[in-house]
Amino acid sequence: MTMSLLTVGTVAFDDIQTPYGHAEKVIGGACTYISWAASYFTDDIRLTSIVGADFPKDEIAQMEARGVKMDGLTVVEDGKTFFWAGKYHENMNQRDTLQTDLNVLDDFNPELPASYTDSKYIMLGNLTPDIQIRVTEQLTAPKLIVLDTMNFWMDIAMDRLKEAISKVDVLTINDEEARQLSGEYSLVKATGAGDTFAGGFMGYLTKTDDITFENMKRAVVYGSAMASFCVEEFSLGKMKDLDDEIINSRVNEFVQLTSFNI
Amino acid sequence: MTMSLLTVGTVAFDDIQTPYGHAEKVIGGACTYISWAASYFTDDIRLTSIVGADFPKDEIAQMEARGVKMDGLTVVEDGKTFFWAGKYHENMNQRDTLQTDLNVLDDFNPELPASYTDSKYIMLGNLTPDIQIRVTEQLTAPKLIVLDTMNFWMDIAMDRLKEAISKVDVLTINDEEARQLSGEYSLVKATGAGDTFAGGFMGYLTKTDDITFENMKRAVVYGSAMASFCVEEFSLGKMKDLDDEIINSRVNEFVQLTSFNI
Repeated sequence: MTMSLLTVGTVAFDDIQTPYGHAEKVIGGACTYISWAASYFTDDIRLTSIVGADFPKDEIAQMEARGVKMDGLTVVEDGKTFFWAGKYHENMNQRDTLQTDLNVLDDFNPELPASYTDSKYIMLGNLTPDIQIRVTEQLTAPKLIVLDTMNFWMDIAMDRLKEAISKVDVLTINDEEARQLSGEYSLVKATGAGDTFAGGFMGYLTKTDDITFENMKRAVVYGSAMASFCVEEFSLGKMKDLDDEIINSRVNEFVQLTSFNI
Repeated sequence: MTMSLLTVGTVAFDDIQTPYGHAEKVIGGACTYISWAASYFTDDIRLTSIVGADFPKDEIAQMEARGVKMDGLTVVEDGKTFFWAGKYHENMNQRDTLQTDLNVLDDFNPELPASYTDSKYIMLGNLTPDIQIRVTEQLTAPKLIVLDTMNFWMDIAMDRLKEAISKVDVLTINDEEARQLSGEYSLVKATGAGDTFAGGFMGYLTKTDDITFENMKRAVVYGSAMASFCVEEFSLGKMKDLDDEIINSRVNEFVQLTSFNI
């Protein structure tokens, strides 16, 4: 039996400037990307979003052809689609928002169609915690709920966001958002982690005297394990207090965490 | 036979302020961290650095007790040790340099002791490209040379740095440094990569209907593969042009790249 995937979020226009090209008013939005990517895995995708009459009908049709259901898409005939414009810096890691026109998104308050309420897998895009909570309340038999959010909601609606989080299973947030949410910071992230990585990496290569790519990957794991000790205390505190057993135990934890079988 | 590891770089004092603690004038320096970390793997470490008379003799003795040779350590009796002071931001990812006193490091121009020149594994810490080149020229039988550097040297001595790089096997630089060095940027890193990850992650879970931790790790791999397609073109360009074979091929590349056996 094919499982169902409910996705709730934005369908949008983006305008993206980079030092290497400018994409003018292209199709964007979390729901759009999520639906397209997921369409290669399942054909029961239930999209929930809102657009204006300016959104190309052909784009909707292309998604429908991939098995994306549109019962949950509201088209506001006299409205305009959510629009975001941004400019990326030289390093492509930072960006400035140039324009955000919420447009029809301002009125987004999704009531799930009856055909959606039994969805098993649910991806709640980055929306107001209120909307996220309201969606979870309409689900009759969820198996896994994943929630995306961002620092903006932590700044202005932390209590409500925490309530939303209490109703879900998985968060997709980055490291900075995780720190803001939890209030937990690394005790110390002193200088030296990179150098400690290099020391572990080189030490392992020196020990094994094997510079094949396969052994370099192992050296990366040992270097990472050593760096993970470094950041537990200021300065050399932890580095002076290790032994083979402690190191191998950490390496094994790393192996367990990262190993997978496809 | 135990292989030899030569490490060339700083031995220093650090002063590190964080929102969660202040380490006042503690032991730091790339050579120090590298040597300590590597000492758990090999006992033929050859340190090359420079300090002032203010550097604690006990710290040197502790490293020697771990097998770190000090023939290449210059102690300047009327000099002061390199000192760096910095303050980390709330997010612990960014930091401001408050003070950099090069002190004796200003005169660092290492002549390798005769006992060092046959070193097999060489870790060149973040120093001027001139020093890095000079060290490589003194080596008689290197097996693997690793070089660390930073954007500062790219800004002021790019040609000389590239010459240094031409003499080594491995670089330890971060993503931003790699971009500056190569002049190569991702063609496009548009919005949508995170959402595409979420779509692949959720799509795979929906398809397999298995929410064990083991299967979530597989879903992370599929999500990453889908995101790697997303950033190849602006907007949905690439996302509309995939099939199972292309996706599985990318997943297999990911498996090959990341798999290792300890």
